Amino acid sequence: MISVAEALAEVLKLGAPVDAEMVPLSEADGRVLAEDVAATRNQPPFSASAMDGYAVSTEKVAEGDSFSVIGEAAAGHRFEGLVSAGQAVRIFTGAPLPEGGVRVIIQEDVTREGDKITLKGDLDGGHHVRPAGGDFKIGDVLSAPRRLTSFDVALLASMNVPRVPVRRRPVVAIIATGDELVSPGETPRDDQIIASNSLGLAALFQRAGAATRLLPIAKDTPASLEMALSLAAGSDLLVTIGGASVGDHDIVAEVAGTMGLEREFYKVAMRPGKPLMAGRIGGMAMIGLPGNPVSSMVCGEVFVLPLLDRFLGLTAGARRRVQMTLSEPLESNSHREHYMRAAIDGDAVKAFARQDSSLLTVLARANALIVRPPNDPARAAGEMVEVIRL
Amino acid sequence: MISVAEALAEVLKLGAPVDAEMVPLSEADGRVLAEDVAATRNQPPFSASAMDGYAVSTEKVAEGDSFSVIGEAAAGHRFEGLVSAGQAVRIFTGAPLPEGGVRVIIQEDVTREGDKITLKGDLDGGHHVRPAGGDFKIGDVLSAPRRLTSFDVALLASMNVPRVPVRRRPVVAIIATGDELVSPGETPRDDQIIASNSLGLAALFQRAGAATRLLPIAKDTPASLEMALSLAAGSDLLVTIGGASVGDHDIVAEVAGTMGLEREFYKVAMRPGKPLMAGRIGGMAMIGLPGNPVSSMVCGEVFVLPLLDRFLGLTAGARRRVQMTLSEPLESNSHREHYMRAAIDGDAVKAFARQDSSLLTVLARANALIVRPPNDPARAAGEMVEVIRL
Repeated sequence: MISVAEALAEVLKLGAPVDAEMVPLSEADGRVLAEDVAATRNQPPFSASAMDGYAVSTEKVAEGDSFSVIGEAAAGHRFEGLVSAGQAVRIFTGAPLPEGGVRVIIQEDVTREGDKITLKGDLDGGHHVRPAGGDFKIGDVLSAPRRLTSFDVALLASMNVPRVPVRRRPVVAIIATGDELVSPGETPRDDQIIASNSLGLAALFQRAGAATRLLPIAKDTPASLEMALSLAAGSDLLVTIGGASVGDHDIVAEVAGTMGLEREFYKVAMRPGKPLMAGRIGGMAMIGLPGNPVSSMVCGEVFVLPLLDRFLGLTAGARRRVQMTLSEPLESNSHREHYMRAAIDGDAVKAFARQDSSLLTVLARANALIVRPPNDPARAAGEMVEVIRL
Repeated sequence: MISVAEALAEVLKLGAPVDAEMVPLSEADGRVLAEDVAATRNQPPFSASAMDGYAVSTEKVAEGDSFSVIGEAAAGHRFEGLVSAGQAVRIFTGAPLPEGGVRVIIQEDVTREGDKITLKGDLDGGHHVRPAGGDFKIGDVLSAPRRLTSFDVALLASMNVPRVPVRRRPVVAIIATGDELVSPGETPRDDQIIASNSLGLAALFQRAGAATRLLPIAKDTPASLEMALSLAAGSDLLVTIGGASVGDHDIVAEVAGTMGLEREFYKVAMRPGKPLMAGRIGGMAMIGLPGNPVSSMVCGEVFVLPLLDRFLGLTAGARRRVQMTLSEPLESNSHREHYMRAAIDGDAVKAFARQDSSLLTVLARANALIVRPPNDPARAAGEMVEVIRL
């Protein structure tokens, strides 16, 4: 058996960044920026008023000062003249500051009669001017790699970048294996169950930025497995579920071996999920996940999501972990790293009592995994543990 | 001016759960479950082996005990006979436990010669049987409302629920207003800027489960605004950006008023984002967001996302907040609730130095908002503050 860290390092060697493609900004949210993108303009492009008020040419003003209003500047409508001493330009939020203007007196601080304004007392001290280029300047970049957020989309729009280079979605083929499986909506025999992990994993991988191909369930026969594996051709990653253990009926490794699988390892010292396989087959990366529902979803989190990050050109590594306080004690751990289904409530976390790897109801209630190192001693409430948020 | 809490309460009155629709499970991730869904079967449907090994009919076994192997049970292939004292059935993970079987001896604990197995010493004490219905039973429900996760998708699949009732996506029409705006990819005049918020907000709302309709930018004229507003007809929610302040050029409220807007309020004691408008127009909810880039995105987080939750039938309220330690001090706050752009690093949070509501570069670097109550005193590093994760 090898450690989770060793296994993850091997898994990450299976991936490399996929090609970039251009997408319109309206489809860029959540995609991974593939190249630095530079602003094509300054923002603001001009010094602009931050308030509705009057632009004047002097910084020093006092109660009783008066100015004659010589024109108006609105957002999108520049005042074309110069504002000089004793003069003011009526100005609205977002409008370009007129030439000569250095300060905006907010309208609440002004009494206006005809074209004359007089300043009231207790003046607001702010200048209310946003300097040209104060947010960003031409050539400033949004750096790749980066998973784009809705805020990034707004920023790229203001940079006037209508299309952005992002990594194409890595294609993940998913094959569930086992004579006991039927698809949701079918009627299982009384010794069969529903294939649940393929749809769950597809959702997990799609959220992480992959395109998924759900292939037919493979029976535990070489012919059925060969057919399913051949359908995966052309994908970036093949994920099989089940059949990766050491039992007589676990034939994925055997069949994949005859089809050219270069296998890297197949047993990892973790719970849930000991039987894990990784390697290359037909130009694709391949990961064989265990068939237990919880094991396959947890191994998807722990191994496949970092590999997808790698395909997307992101710095890939173990899922981000935080330290959190235990609200209930934990028993000592075995020699295998344990990913315990857990619930974060407020600032504390507790593990569920039932940790069997077949219990999807428990996983569905979990919003975190507590990561126990091998041979971790018993932990008391109040101690800190390592947590992966789900 | 009214408080953020008062404004949010008013905003939430504008929405009610939209209709449900059935979607295939492959499209259910992230959608909001509209009705309780019941399992159509037990899981496991039979008592099953949790390991590869041998099923026997007695709980008490000891080193040297021997059994004759009378058959085999594999996942998807039940052993049809009965296992009695002195007998064993070869069994694989996931296979139904044969009638009479009460315990599985793992294969590592067995020496096999022909059809006879003999138990080794230092026996594993586990029974390795997953009882029928141990995960869930027929009729057990996944309760609505609930935003479905990839784990829920796996659970629903194992319940043999191929299609699920979810809320349809509420339709949000988005209109940016202002003579100063052009769309990304166009060439602005030197007194114009790029409309950045409509795309950013569309991304934010889509992530929250909405379908968005990006309508043409409206000029600051009644005719242009009327045209844009009329295009929004049939949406669940109309979101306008800009033109909701008190300046002479802010005519959204005026034009919407002539088109039947019943306005609820328009000034909220918050930073960024004072000018906010909400009401009903033509059967739609309407929210007028401020035009400043950061203001509009923050108000989208604080007001529109909870309203979308309400349309989706989720318990809507203020965005979920956590307490976190400040790593740098904060100055005292004004009388307006302040949503400061901030960065969480490890277990601590700090506000960015530049908090002007025009700075999209700062917002794009932020992964949190620190929420300062009105008149909050200065805070020292190490004090706890309220934080919204972005």
